[in-house]
Amino acid sequence: MTMNDTFLKACRAEPTDYTPIWMMRQAGRYLPEYQKVRGKVTFLELCKSPELCVEVTLQPIDILHMDAAILFSDILIPMEAMGLRLEFHEGKGPVFPDTVRDKAAVDSLMIPEPNETMGFVMETIKLLRKELKVPLIGFAGAPFTCATYLIEGGSSKVFWETKKMMFTAPELFHKLMQKITACTSAYLVAQAHAGAQALQIFDSWAGILAPCDFREFALPYVKRIIADLQPTKLPIIYFANNGATLLDYSVDSGADVIGLDWRINIGDAIRRVGNKAVQGNIDPFALLLPKDKLRARIKRLLEDATDAKGHIFNLGHGIHQFTPPEQAKIAVDAVHELSQR
Amino acid sequence: MTMNDTFLKACRAEPTDYTPIWMMRQAGRYLPEYQKVRGKVTFLELCKSPELCVEVTLQPIDILHMDAAILFSDILIPMEAMGLRLEFHEGKGPVFPDTVRDKAAVDSLMIPEPNETMGFVMETIKLLRKELKVPLIGFAGAPFTCATYLIEGGSSKVFWETKKMMFTAPELFHKLMQKITACTSAYLVAQAHAGAQALQIFDSWAGILAPCDFREFALPYVKRIIADLQPTKLPIIYFANNGATLLDYSVDSGADVIGLDWRINIGDAIRRVGNKAVQGNIDPFALLLPKDKLRARIKRLLEDATDAKGHIFNLGHGIHQFTPPEQAKIAVDAVHELSQR
Repeated sequence: MTMNDTFLKACRAEPTDYTPIWMMRQAGRYLPEYQKVRGKVTFLELCKSPELCVEVTLQPIDILHMDAAILFSDILIPMEAMGLRLEFHEGKGPVFPDTVRDKAAVDSLMIPEPNETMGFVMETIKLLRKELKVPLIGFAGAPFTCATYLIEGGSSKVFWETKKMMFTAPELFHKLMQKITACTSAYLVAQAHAGAQALQIFDSWAGILAPCDFREFALPYVKRIIADLQPTKLPIIYFANNGATLLDYSVDSGADVIGLDWRINIGDAIRRVGNKAVQGNIDPFALLLPKDKLRARIKRLLEDATDAKGHIFNLGHGIHQFTPPEQAKIAVDAVHELSQR
Repeated sequence: MTMNDTFLKACRAEPTDYTPIWMMRQAGRYLPEYQKVRGKVTFLELCKSPELCVEVTLQPIDILHMDAAILFSDILIPMEAMGLRLEFHEGKGPVFPDTVRDKAAVDSLMIPEPNETMGFVMETIKLLRKELKVPLIGFAGAPFTCATYLIEGGSSKVFWETKKMMFTAPELFHKLMQKITACTSAYLVAQAHAGAQALQIFDSWAGILAPCDFREFALPYVKRIIADLQPTKLPIIYFANNGATLLDYSVDSGADVIGLDWRINIGDAIRRVGNKAVQGNIDPFALLLPKDKLRARIKRLLEDATDAKGHIFNLGHGIHQFTPPEQAKIAVDAVHELSQR
């Protein structure tokens, strides 16, 4: 089977015939085909059913012609495997009923053996590799982002409990981060062994940290994971959401590709990341623009990214559930057409 | 009555004996003295009672020795004066039951005469000026931030409706912005005439915009207001929250002082804003640090800000309701002590 390896070339900053594109959350609620599958099972059941995960992972490749697939899963799956009860409440998102806020809670976390506890993920990867003609991205949450969910007990607006632990019990916070890091490294190595061809680390909440705190409390653990992944030789994408002021640190993480949210001009970002490849970064809501304006914005973004050592087109955040799929298709076609060398 | 004008000197980039400090939301829920007043009335009743507004505005000056007072009010008061029903729901924040999403809703908005419709604000300012020995800051929300509340019908996590209007009905969006801008300019001019000695424009949600969209949809209206305020000769502070990538535009707004959130190193920001004064920018949650670490962090921030043309110490966002007041006091004392020239 011939593989479209444009995405992998861009990750490695090698020349490509055009700019590859995929979209964060591309297997998701904006697709009626996804909704149909999701209607039959709960979100967690879906995450743990390899056949269904394969089906929804393939949908955006087949329908929208993305240049890469990303494993359908959730960043909190390995946190559940550490021994925590994880629930998804409709309209509220993930909930950990037992928050991790003291030494006893941190001590009781296990470092799971990924193939034993998350075999369904590895099975999904193996099945996908048989079907896919584009590269498969595996992923995990960054330790800081995962820690916020455990400490807050779910999503948060202000992350009071997380910062309270950081600022008043830093040793406990670091201990929690070490355990999550060990779990995450093993989990990503297992994904690589199962067949993932690139790995993305999602630091969705890195942007709530002052640069000095990011350097002290979050970056060392991202670096540790990326160092642990070196033997896999896979390209690593690090995406620190809302991380414009953390770019120098993102580069320092050792990642091959720097993910960018939509808040920064991509040309400015490229000047700062030097010879790293970049991934991003159109505002996901700009997909609502009328066709001519959407194409014009994509053209400008591609021009701004001309000097990138490698560029993977993406949204600056996950695609929103109310986005019409035909608008996403306009974007994919525009990137393919307008970026032809 | 002798006035401590250190804050005003710093705004104007004149030399000061020490770095002045105030905190966003300094008259607020973290103070038991505030809670006591607030317990007697609703939030909106409080905003409309000049005597009570004076009382809570003075509290942080008397208790914590801040170098500036900020009028107690809410950025949405003038939006109510434009003819919209405004409610504050416990735990949910502001709600506009009638959202502004179509031409009819935009057309029906009035440009209020501030002294007629918001006389209670002007009365508060006049009363405060008789009591205060530090400068009084008046304020308003920036048009973009105000618009998000009207369009969304309150607070939002993702601002789907706001961006939908921006991207699919830009003319309507600009018309709404023009009306809010006219209202805001008149409101701030009236505050100046009533006795405000500096004016801050809060752009709490500017940071959800890509730089190109900020420039097109938000910045022109901030510039318009600041131009309208020139005859007052008051120093203008513009605070674009989460606006690290918008700094060049913030400078271009014409403001005298650039507010900074905590996500950027203040030294990096100062290098970018050139000869403007800056205000900020410690993480509000860092007030939880043990005394020695809090003082060390403040010392470092003051050192990083050495090259500022003027520096007003502040938090990078409003003080959180669970902050112990004694921790805020440690910060105020540390800034006063450690910044002595």
